[in-house]
Amino acid sequence: MSFARVAIIGLGLIGGSIGLAVRDELSGVTTSGFDADPAVRERARERKLADEIHDDAAEAVTGADLVILCVPVGAMGAAAKAILPGLSPDAVISDVGSSKRSILQTLQAALPEHTIIPAHPVAGTEHSGPDAGFSTLFHQRWCIVTPPEGAPEDKIAALVDFWEGLGAMVETMDPEHHDKVLAVTSHIPHLIAYTIVGTASDLETVTRSEVIKYSAGGFRDFTRIAASDPTMWRDVFLNNKDAVLEMLDSFLTDLALMREAIRAGDGEMMHDTFSRTRAIRRSIVALGQDDPRPDFGREHE
Amino acid sequence: MSFARVAIIGLGLIGGSIGLAVRDELSGVTTSGFDADPAVRERARERKLADEIHDDAAEAVTGADLVILCVPVGAMGAAAKAILPGLSPDAVISDVGSSKRSILQTLQAALPEHTIIPAHPVAGTEHSGPDAGFSTLFHQRWCIVTPPEGAPEDKIAALVDFWEGLGAMVETMDPEHHDKVLAVTSHIPHLIAYTIVGTASDLETVTRSEVIKYSAGGFRDFTRIAASDPTMWRDVFLNNKDAVLEMLDSFLTDLALMREAIRAGDGEMMHDTFSRTRAIRRSIVALGQDDPRPDFGREHE
Repeated sequence: MSFARVAIIGLGLIGGSIGLAVRDELSGVTTSGFDADPAVRERARERKLADEIHDDAAEAVTGADLVILCVPVGAMGAAAKAILPGLSPDAVISDVGSSKRSILQTLQAALPEHTIIPAHPVAGTEHSGPDAGFSTLFHQRWCIVTPPEGAPEDKIAALVDFWEGLGAMVETMDPEHHDKVLAVTSHIPHLIAYTIVGTASDLETVTRSEVIKYSAGGFRDFTRIAASDPTMWRDVFLNNKDAVLEMLDSFLTDLALMREAIRAGDGEMMHDTFSRTRAIRRSIVALGQDDPRPDFGREHE
Repeated sequence: MSFARVAIIGLGLIGGSIGLAVRDELSGVTTSGFDADPAVRERARERKLADEIHDDAAEAVTGADLVILCVPVGAMGAAAKAILPGLSPDAVISDVGSSKRSILQTLQAALPEHTIIPAHPVAGTEHSGPDAGFSTLFHQRWCIVTPPEGAPEDKIAALVDFWEGLGAMVETMDPEHHDKVLAVTSHIPHLIAYTIVGTASDLETVTRSEVIKYSAGGFRDFTRIAASDPTMWRDVFLNNKDAVLEMLDSFLTDLALMREAIRAGDGEMMHDTFSRTRAIRRSIVALGQDDPRPDFGREHE
């Protein structure tokens, strides 16, 4: 089986990119879209983020065999309730959220009669909203599918095919493990970035203007992900608390060791750590998960 | 006054970029270069990083009216001793290191009869060595000049002119303040990046291969600066200990508050912080200190 009509609920960066990618890469598949914000719907119509943009969530999912919820994690429950009246009994309900265990529970509670197969495309930029999406966002990026026990194999396979059709590589994983992996590769980096950018803007001895001027020393790298959508990220931390705290405590232990090395002048410990971390960067670039050009390919004109 | 002959000691990313930039942008100024590593000198000759590459540091500075030490902070003292026999009494000795107070003390102790005017171009990439430099590295970047009390005004002005000639914007500052500003905008970001990349590669519950595969969720951003030169960075932390520890403790205080917000489920505190940090990013982009394109301009093909 494969999907013929995809409903996209939430037309920001990810939802909009899915709509544009389906149009560009999956011929014969039609899309319908909905967003709770009328201004977003208007912009979505102008950008043609889906073939049809509806003013009502239940109408948007009518006739769809795949429904993808592209809303903040904390809005999943309300979105599920809003689409229920229009849902076909055979439709697969999926999503793109960054914490899978809580979303699976929420969706199974809201839609107990339906097939729920959560997914998470590990892709994005720091921009958000209906102007941020583009059709190649998922190329060469991983999408993690986290089917619950007993989910129909043909529907799982169809969802995997769908994401591969958008250019992604797909891995399946159980939701608990997904949440630990993403805590390390995404949630803690965002938490650290948000925190250090906050720290730097409130110092007594260094002005905010100085922080901005001299940010090319490394700080500016952190400001990119610290410019991500605040509501989306609040919801991620509220919904992946256990894994985030576990990984945060590992980081804090290591940072305390590093602090002690600096205090004690232990250059050997520092040099050892700083040498090991280079290898990870090389592997990420070799695997096509980052730009091989220096400085992320930033322009130096 | 202006400089006619510039000696560059150390031909890695920064030294090599200075040589290439002088050739491209300062007509009439000649360069001579030296590196302690014979393999680097050979590559520097092939890339023509300076007009002349010498096998002896003292020979390289003979006749130079500006000498720029482009070596790790911990190697400044040895480099100063090595050039002394060839130094002209009127030459200005400068450098490009990332901690100014310790370098000023080291150079004044090693070269008590000479004019020392430290400087720090806040520019770079994660690459290092003689192949890493390029002539536009300093364009639109700030260079901080930290003249000691009593340094001759005409020589300070000539050094400012030199850096502006390479495309940089120049600010003067006292060395202590420089060290605090750079602790925030450069040293702490590097320390955090090195630490989290180390943490992520040693976890029990998530494999290194998973960290690499799903790094596009944010982690990969940190791996770039964690791929910087280990010796250079060890020396920065050994030589800017006080300011780094002060700023690190501010960050740790804020991170503890954020940890508590996650533990307690305080979504309002998180949303407030995450909203404020967006403004800093916008200011950095508006000031030309980062690429305005989403995702640093990384390619999404």
